[in-house]
Formats: sequence, structure tokens, C-alpha cells
Amino acid sequence: MYNFSYSNPTKLIFGKDQISKLSEELPSGANILMIYGGGSIKQNGVYNKVIDALRGFNCIEFSGIEPNPHYETCMKAVEVVKGKNIDFILAVGGGSVVDAVKFIAAAALYEGTDAWDIVAKGAKVKSAMPFGVVLTLPATGSEMNSGSVITRAADKNKLGWGSYKVYPTFSILDPTVTFSLPKKQIGNGVVDTFVHTTEQYLTFDVDAKLQDGFAETILRALVSDGPKALADPQNYDVRANLMFAATLALNGLIGLGVPQDWATHEIGHELTANYGLDHGQTLAIVLPGVLTVLREQKQDKIAQCGRNVFQINEQNIDNQINKTIAAIENFFETMGISTHLSSYGIGAEAADLVSNRLAERGWVIGEKQNITPKIVKEILLLRK
Amino acid sequence: MYNFSYSNPTKLIFGKDQISKLSEELPSGANILMIYGGGSIKQNGVYNKVIDALRGFNCIEFSGIEPNPHYETCMKAVEVVKGKNIDFILAVGGGSVVDAVKFIAAAALYEGTDAWDIVAKGAKVKSAMPFGVVLTLPATGSEMNSGSVITRAADKNKLGWGSYKVYPTFSILDPTVTFSLPKKQIGNGVVDTFVHTTEQYLTFDVDAKLQDGFAETILRALVSDGPKALADPQNYDVRANLMFAATLALNGLIGLGVPQDWATHEIGHELTANYGLDHGQTLAIVLPGVLTVLREQKQDKIAQCGRNVFQINEQNIDNQINKTIAAIENFFETMGISTHLSSYGIGAEAADLVSNRLAERGWVIGEKQNITPKIVKEILLLRK
Repeated sequence: MYNFSYSNPTKLIFGKDQISKLSEELPSGANILMIYGGGSIKQNGVYNKVIDALRGFNCIEFSGIEPNPHYETCMKAVEVVKGKNIDFILAVGGGSVVDAVKFIAAAALYEGTDAWDIVAKGAKVKSAMPFGVVLTLPATGSEMNSGSVITRAADKNKLGWGSYKVYPTFSILDPTVTFSLPKKQIGNGVVDTFVHTTEQYLTFDVDAKLQDGFAETILRALVSDGPKALADPQNYDVRANLMFAATLALNGLIGLGVPQDWATHEIGHELTANYGLDHGQTLAIVLPGVLTVLREQKQDKIAQCGRNVFQINEQNIDNQINKTIAAIENFFETMGISTHLSSYGIGAEAADLVSNRLAERGWVIGEKQNITPKIVKEILLLRK
Repeated sequence: MYNFSYSNPTKLIFGKDQISKLSEELPSGANILMIYGGGSIKQNGVYNKVIDALRGFNCIEFSGIEPNPHYETCMKAVEVVKGKNIDFILAVGGGSVVDAVKFIAAAALYEGTDAWDIVAKGAKVKSAMPFGVVLTLPATGSEMNSGSVITRAADKNKLGWGSYKVYPTFSILDPTVTFSLPKKQIGNGVVDTFVHTTEQYLTFDVDAKLQDGFAETILRALVSDGPKALADPQNYDVRANLMFAATLALNGLIGLGVPQDWATHEIGHELTANYGLDHGQTLAIVLPGVLTVLREQKQDKIAQCGRNVFQINEQNIDNQINKTIAAIENFFETMGISTHLSSYGIGAEAADLVSNRLAERGWVIGEKQNITPKIVKEILLLRK
């Protein structure tokens, strides 16, 4: 196990009817900016629950955060924060809204000339506005971590950044608000959670028994309960397990003291930025390719995943790895998320385009920093 | 899964040579009171490492915190905190020292007339001194939670209490400092961690797949690496897994949204208070009795533990339960901790004494609040 340090200050408030507790978590007398997305919260009842809970607070609204939130939209919200004397921000939505609010919270207090530097150049975030979350879609884990992914639409740059200053103060997770999610969003969320977990687990062994076992627990819960959520959307326990799994997959815990490989996300971001695919779709395409091309380097952990997550017990290591990668790909398809570029009408030219984009940035990725742009091309050509 | 809320502000700093980072975590210019136990830290090198790291800080020392820390000793430390203008307390030791420092931190700022009320009457802790931890013995999980157990020697009352105000600011965990622990302390620590875990797991099923899988991961790690620590004391990865397991077993995480049964600890505390047994020894005696007497109520989870922790797969449920309880008892014995009262020279009269003590308090315990003093007697008579 490697050395690590860990601190996660977010307060998690989990369960049925917990949105009603919102007012207890807000600073009294605060001017609140409530930020949300395209308005689905007005269909599923969350908007009304939040407005009820905010009674007695000064609150104005900012809507229109898009999936893969745009820097350009966020900067409009920053103007509202500055112009309306806002003290506290409330994110109501999924990972995109939470990621956007993290950036808005940091950009509103940024002292440099160009807040995009926070994302693109790792400019230090010295302070950020406090904010809370009412989560509507379990997927990204952003509700209990300090990371965010922002897209600058102008030049199709989709980039991750993070700062200890942008942990949510609190996050309210009510599994019942996920009952009405479209099947595609359930599938995308489960795939996203699965891939986050593998990126902290399918690397090489450092005898980290707790982290490995926790990761396998999350993966087994997804494999068990993901399909149940599609088949039986109102099953509370299923939704509770999926929602908690998404948080635990990326709140830092399972990645403590172990090697990590974020290549799948890094390649996937390029597919979203350039072809508009959903984040989950890109991950379902890329992960089987990463595991296939890196199969030797990752073989012990892929084999372990096969045994402990999919009950695959082949004597021959090649068979074990082949069957495990096939099981992962099959699971994504079972969740309704296609795993090949061609299913989305994208041709083999994507392999060159993505490879070139990473080459322009000089990125060499993976847990051993050996996934060059050339290998990225190889990975994507396998996923035609 | 039940509703829950969770927030754990302690910063964990884990790994080799991390004590040297102590000065980065302390408030600059603080007057520090360093509190420790009987002096084992002077033998194992921890004292010198801490003193080195504290160079440049004003620091005075208070030693002599006993195992099962006494209220009476803690109150002497409270006088030092008040008399010497202390700003920050540093606990250097195992769970007893950390528990003592939690009480000292709260008692130093307590406004009531009798600080024992914090422990015995649940008097509200409105504020507490900030404190950090350098942990020397993995066992109690106190380094990353808000609980504490204090004994008033005068009347043999050993009681747990807790407050959100007494989370450590930081805890430094260096597995190498555990290399020199006596075998008895290794065994006690592993048993304590095992029993904490079962008390949040061996109850009844609420379909909490994450919490169950995390608990089983901790138990498997203990069963795997506990004996290795006895056989190969300098194995870093083994010690790292055991140390992290102890923290994860009682930092609140695995108990979120699930029923809990702290009967084993509650009965065990009486055995310590009245007969002077080590905490781990009492748990090794009591848990098999609790599981045997409550076997019907707990049968699904005991059977699950057998399958997922000990690879026991009996068709017949009675056989499954018998073998699982026997495997747990055998594991404690393998760790060098005897599991019967008679091994410690204690007779059957302990069953009456403990039962009467709990009856005096009016306690009825267990996850279904149905373990009466009469059933406590039955449990202990099984453990002669």
C-alpha cells in the first residue's frame, strides 16, 4: 500500500424525504443562488420540494446548465453571483450541475484575469463560495469529492480539475428522486460508477486488501442491482444501493494508497467533446479497449476482478482475462449502453482524431504512464 | 437501507515516516499538551520521532494515561490544560490515550459543574479543545470517530459517550510503529476490530449491499492478515492492512443505514470494569455467546458471514451457523486471545454480576432491544 492522506468534509444526508432537511443545512439569512439544468427537476417534483424547503430564504435561480457543462454558461452564473450579493450556492441536479457549481464557486472568488486557467492551467483556487447539493442522478460521485470536469465549447476542450476548496458543504441524496430517470440515464450512471471503480482497481497489485475488497463490493452491487433498476424502477433498496455506490466509487476512499489509471476517462472526454456522446457511452466504448491492449500489465487484477465480481474461474490466464473483459462489455450492453463506436455512427477516423488531440497536449496516460497517443489509437481501433 | 447522515472531518495521514509531517498539521505558535500512556512510546521510538517533529513548538507533556482510561486521571490533565494556557492537545498512543484526550478536550471547556455528566448523563458538549493523534496501536478506531469510553475507577463504571465536537483534527497512522507491539496487543487489536465490524453487520438484512460487502472485506482482511502479523511482525503490507482495517471498522462508514448491535461491547465493558480483563479479551469471550443465544434472530447474517468471510457453505442452516460461530471463536484463539471466562480464572458468578450491573442501569440491548439482563446471564453462562 502506498502512503496517502485523506480528508473529506462533505456531510452526506441520505434517504427518503431528506430534501425537507435542506433548511437546517443552510446558513441563516443567506442569499442563495439555486443552480440547475434543463428543467427536468420541474417534471420529477424535485424543484417543488426544494422550493418548499427554501421557504424563508432569499433565493434566486439560474437554470440552463447543460450536460458536460460549458465554461461559457458557468461564467454567466459567476456574473449573477457577483452582481446579486450571493452568499451560498445550491446545486440541484446531477454531476454536470454539481461540476458546474464547483467551477462557479471557485471562479466567483478567483483573483486572476482568466478563470479558465483554473481548469486548463491548474491555477490555484485560494478560496471558493460555499455550496450544497441536492442530487438527482447517481453517477459521477461529484457530490462528495473535490473534482469537476468543464468543457469550453469554443474550442471543444473538456478537462478535469480539482481543489480541496470545492468539496460540497453538504449533499442530500434521496433515492426516490431517481425513480423517474430515463433508462438511458440509469445505464449511463451505472457505467460511469463501474468505470470510476475500475480506474482505481484494475491496475497492479499492491496488497491493498481493503481498497480492493471495497472496489469489488461496489462492482458486485452494480452488476446485481443495475439491471434491477431497469426492470423495476421503483425498487427503493435497489436505487439506494446504486446511489450510495456512485458516491462511494469516487469520494476518494477506494483510491487511497493504490495505483490509478484514468485513461478511460481521459480518452472518453475527447469522444464527448468531439462527437457529443454521453459520458457513460464513451466509457462503455473505451474501457474494454484499454483492458484488452493493457492486458499483460493489468492481468493479475483483471483475473481477480473476474473471480471476485463475475465468478469467473478459468485455469488458463488468457481465458480468464478474455472472459472477464467480455463480461464487463456484456454488462454495459445489458445496461443498454452500446460499447462500439459504430453503434453511434462514428467511424475509425475517431481513433486518429482522439490520438492527435492527446498528442497535442503531450499526454501519456495510464497507471504506468505508458499509454502514448499511438496506443490510444490502437485502443480505439479495437472499438470500431 | 435506513436513512442516515454522515460527516467525518478527521484528516487521515497514513504511511511510512508520516510522523515527520506532524508540524504541518499543528496551528503555528500553539501551546501544545502532548498526552501519552505508560511510556511504551519511549521504547519503540515514537516519542523521539514526535519530539523531533515538534521542534519549534511550545510543548509540555502529560503521561500516565492507563488502559481503560480513568476519569480521575483525565481530570488531572484537564487542570494542566486550564493552568498552562494550552491551545492544542496531541494524543500519542492507542485507543485509550485517544479516548482520554477526547474527554479531556471536552471537559476542559465544559461549563457544567461535573464533567462526569458528559459520560454518564449525556450532557451536551458545546465545544471542545482541538486535538490531533499519533496512533501507535490499531484497534479501537478512535482515531477517526467521535466516540470515547471512560472508566470512573471509584465506582467501576466504564461507559461510552460521543460528540461531534471530538473528532480528531488529524490522525497520523504509521504502520511501522506497530512492528514492535507485543503479540497480546496484536491479538487484542485484531479481535477488537473484528468485533466492531460484526456489531454493525451481524444483525438482520436490510439489503445494504455496500455496507455488508465493506464489512466482509474488513473481516476477510483480519482473518487473512491477523495471523500473518503474529508470524511475521515486520511485514509492512500486513501491518498497513490491519491498521487501515481498524480505522475503517469504526469510522462510521460501515454502520451507515444498517441496524447495529453493540451488546458484545456493552457486556464486555462490565467484564473489564469488574475483573480487569483487556477489552479485546472480553469481546472474544462474549461475541460467540451473543451469536449463539441470538442465532435465530441473526441467522441470515451469520450464514452470510460464514459464506463470504470463512468460505463455509453448508446446506443445513444449523450446521452453517454452528460452523460459522466455531470459525469466529477459532479465529480469536488463533490470534492468541482465549474465549472462555475460565481461561482468565473467572467463574460462573460473573454472569450474575454483569447481568445485575446492566439491570441496575435498566439496559436492554441488541439490535432489537431484546437482550435483557436475563439473556445477558444466559450468554455469559455459555462462556464459562
